[in-house]
Amino acid sequence: MVIIGLRNLSFLRRSLPCRLSAIAISGQASRRSLSTDLITVETEPDNKDIAILTMCRKPVNSMNGQMLTDMTLTLKELEKTSRGVILTSTVRNVFAAGLDINELYKTTPERFGEFWSLFQDMWMTLYGTPLVTIAAINGHSPAGGCVLAMSCDYRIMARGKYTIGLNEALLGFMAPSWVMNLMKLTIGNRESEKALSLGKLYGCDQALEVGLVDELCDPDEVLARAKAEMNKWLKIADEGRRLTKSMLRKDTIDKLASTRRQNIDFMASIILQPSVQEVMGNYLQSLKKK
Amino acid sequence: MVIIGLRNLSFLRRSLPCRLSAIAISGQASRRSLSTDLITVETEPDNKDIAILTMCRKPVNSMNGQMLTDMTLTLKELEKTSRGVILTSTVRNVFAAGLDINELYKTTPERFGEFWSLFQDMWMTLYGTPLVTIAAINGHSPAGGCVLAMSCDYRIMARGKYTIGLNEALLGFMAPSWVMNLMKLTIGNRESEKALSLGKLYGCDQALEVGLVDELCDPDEVLARAKAEMNKWLKIADEGRRLTKSMLRKDTIDKLASTRRQNIDFMASIILQPSVQEVMGNYLQSLKKK
Amino acid sequence: MVIIGLRNLSFLRRSLPCRLSAIAISGQASRRSLSTDLITVETEPDNKDIAILTMCRKPVNSMNGQMLTDMTLTLKELEKTSRGVILTSTVRNVFAAGLDINELYKTTPERFGEFWSLFQDMWMTLYGTPLVTIAAINGHSPAGGCVLAMSCDYRIMARGKYTIGLNEALLGFMAPSWVMNLMKLTIGNRESEKALSLGKLYGCDQALEVGLVDELCDPDEVLARAKAEMNKWLKIADEGRRLTKSMLRKDTIDKLASTRRQNIDFMASIILQPSVQEVMGNYLQSLKKK
Repeated sequence: MVIIGLRNLSFLRRSLPCRLSAIAISGQASRRSLSTDLITVETEPDNKDIAILTMCRKPVNSMNGQMLTDMTLTLKELEKTSRGVILTSTVRNVFAAGLDINELYKTTPERFGEFWSLFQDMWMTLYGTPLVTIAAINGHSPAGGCVLAMSCDYRIMARGKYTIGLNEALLGFMAPSWVMNLMKLTIGNRESEKALSLGKLYGCDQALEVGLVDELCDPDEVLARAKAEMNKWLKIADEGRRLTKSMLRKDTIDKLASTRRQNIDFMASIILQPSVQEVMGNYLQSLKKK
Repeated sequence: MVIIGLRNLSFLRRSLPCRLSAIAISGQASRRSLSTDLITVETEPDNKDIAILTMCRKPVNSMNGQMLTDMTLTLKELEKTSRGVILTSTVRNVFAAGLDINELYKTTPERFGEFWSLFQDMWMTLYGTPLVTIAAINGHSPAGGCVLAMSCDYRIMARGKYTIGLNEALLGFMAPSWVMNLMKLTIGNRESEKALSLGKLYGCDQALEVGLVDELCDPDEVLARAKAEMNKWLKIADEGRRLTKSMLRKDTIDKLASTRRQNIDFMASIILQPSVQEVMGNYLQSLKKK
Repeated sequence: MVIIGLRNLSFLRRSLPCRLSAIAISGQASRRSLSTDLITVETEPDNKDIAILTMCRKPVNSMNGQMLTDMTLTLKELEKTSRGVILTSTVRNVFAAGLDINELYKTTPERFGEFWSLFQDMWMTLYGTPLVTIAAINGHSPAGGCVLAMSCDYRIMARGKYTIGLNEALLGFMAPSWVMNLMKLTIGNRESEKALSLGKLYGCDQALEVGLVDELCDPDEVLARAKAEMNKWLKIADEGRRLTKSMLRKDTIDKLASTRRQNIDFMASIILQPSVQEVMGNYLQSLKKK
């Protein structure tokens, strides 16, 4: 696993304005150059309205601070030039595995706060973007990967062995309140209670049945289906659709925006507990053995 | 299309108290006389508890200011004498087509505000009425027609070619926030997001599947089924059922009641935009050609 | 029906601290001694983590003040020693019939307030307990019995002739607002509106279909299935699951906690009405004839 050093994180944060400038400038020349080493961005030759944002951080697309930052900045740039974006992955068997545990393990309240704030930024950007967002879920999608998917306007999942869900309870902690709320908005309160309490990972058929994804298709057709669905959404004039999306999601975003600091402090009080840290340490140890 | 002149609207508003008196007085003599030229009101010979409110404004039961007013006043009168009301239409193939675009096109903020206020009045009256309300949906029911249906206690739709839904996004604007909320309360958040974003009109089978209507029946049996269902609801003593309905819907109504002016101003800021007006103009032009 | 005299209720309330001490002390010696004459408490020989709380107040497990108190105190004790509790009944054909009407009939605002407060206490304790709670619904479960079931983490119902639901509207009053909300959280807003308005009692198949229960099984397997399901839930470490449950249910409990007095006064204003008292009197009369 290529992990950005934790000591480097505050440096990363300070360097955001530079990184943003670099992306913005290169973006004017060619949209391909929005790509970084962790995500690639492409547009369709026959349809410049649609961008494809592909996560490519091996081995499991776990999101460290740099990747969260890249996604936030890229989305903001795409809002200036595109009408829709498809999220997908080139990592084999994985859509996205969630937050990089290395960012949560043996950290300090300060560093945790910086990282968690990047996660909040990315989520508010993705969930609230005026772009049409479609998740092309071509692999496992636990925890933060499920958050990415649920934040899109539409979800297409590869039929097969992959799972999706919020499994934080299995690691001894829990999803943050705004992610719980996102799940309730997606699959309703009752199913969410069960899923969150048991840290449930859904197979694709179950995910479709409860509404966690909108449709299934063969693994090698996910991207093609996502493009076809995107074209359907883009037939709607932007004005009405954007107004509608903004009105539907504004309250949920505002709620987090007004409680960011409390959310960071509460999550830190849980995640920095020795018992939770121990579970994470064991988990990281088990990954190394693989 | 018989359209009340826009210049006449403020006159109409000023004349409301007179119109109300007229209806009230005639209502004492015979319930049939609650009828106006836009809606008829009848009671069952064998069951005075049940009123049938039939919309009859050709060609598509689009709701202008007068029709909204007639519906509000009639419902308030029926609350004094009946226990339940069935909403239906005598216009061929149409239950109700929504607000009359002529009331929204080439208008002023003042006239828009008066009209929109009549729409708010009608909705709060219908949604909050202690009467049992059943929609006998015997034709297409887009936009405001869908709002009428969703505001009732129960919905029966004719099996066949008709559609129902909130298609405002297709006209370049959006449903007001309280209507979005009404849809979420009816079919849940996730389905509402998709439907509102795409301006989706549901066929009857889909409408049943997502819960936008409660049952389907043959077109020529809609009214008979509505009466049978009404009798089921009226077997419940009024006290418990009315208290329950009031408690279930009070917060939603109060929320609009306390933000009426903001809602009017926000909707005006959207609907009076030149781009939205242009879409409406083209739409009205296309209707004239038919 | 063995009914605790209403005059004894205020005595009961004053005696709560003593009763609590008695239960607490005996609980240290053996969990079986948490049992009272209205409920029995047992633990599995092979699994001390799981307690079984069995209601045994003939003829229908109607909840009087004493029973509500016993349940509240027992749950609080179990929180100290167990990880999960299964609610069930030894009364033939009945899981729980709801509040004891004798506590609501010919009462005074003061006595009503004391009783209703015990109901609030029990509900907030059961709904918010960190214990895993599973309802083994082995008989009819109307009104308050349905509240018990809906407050658990998971519901297993005996296949067969039994019914479950909130039928208060049939008695001329209504469920309190927090119980209405609990139903919405369980089966969604739309289904709740219909069920509450009609005082609907669901057969087991319907209850499963709308999500009012999570699964059905043969009547003589309900308890075994509840234990198996409990073991599944207890595989999750307590920390993550308890945090999750607390975050999911906190707002709902806080809402009642901050409006207890208003809720009591509002319910008293309805239930003490002569018309509602008359319906209750007739109901009690009809029970005596059986």
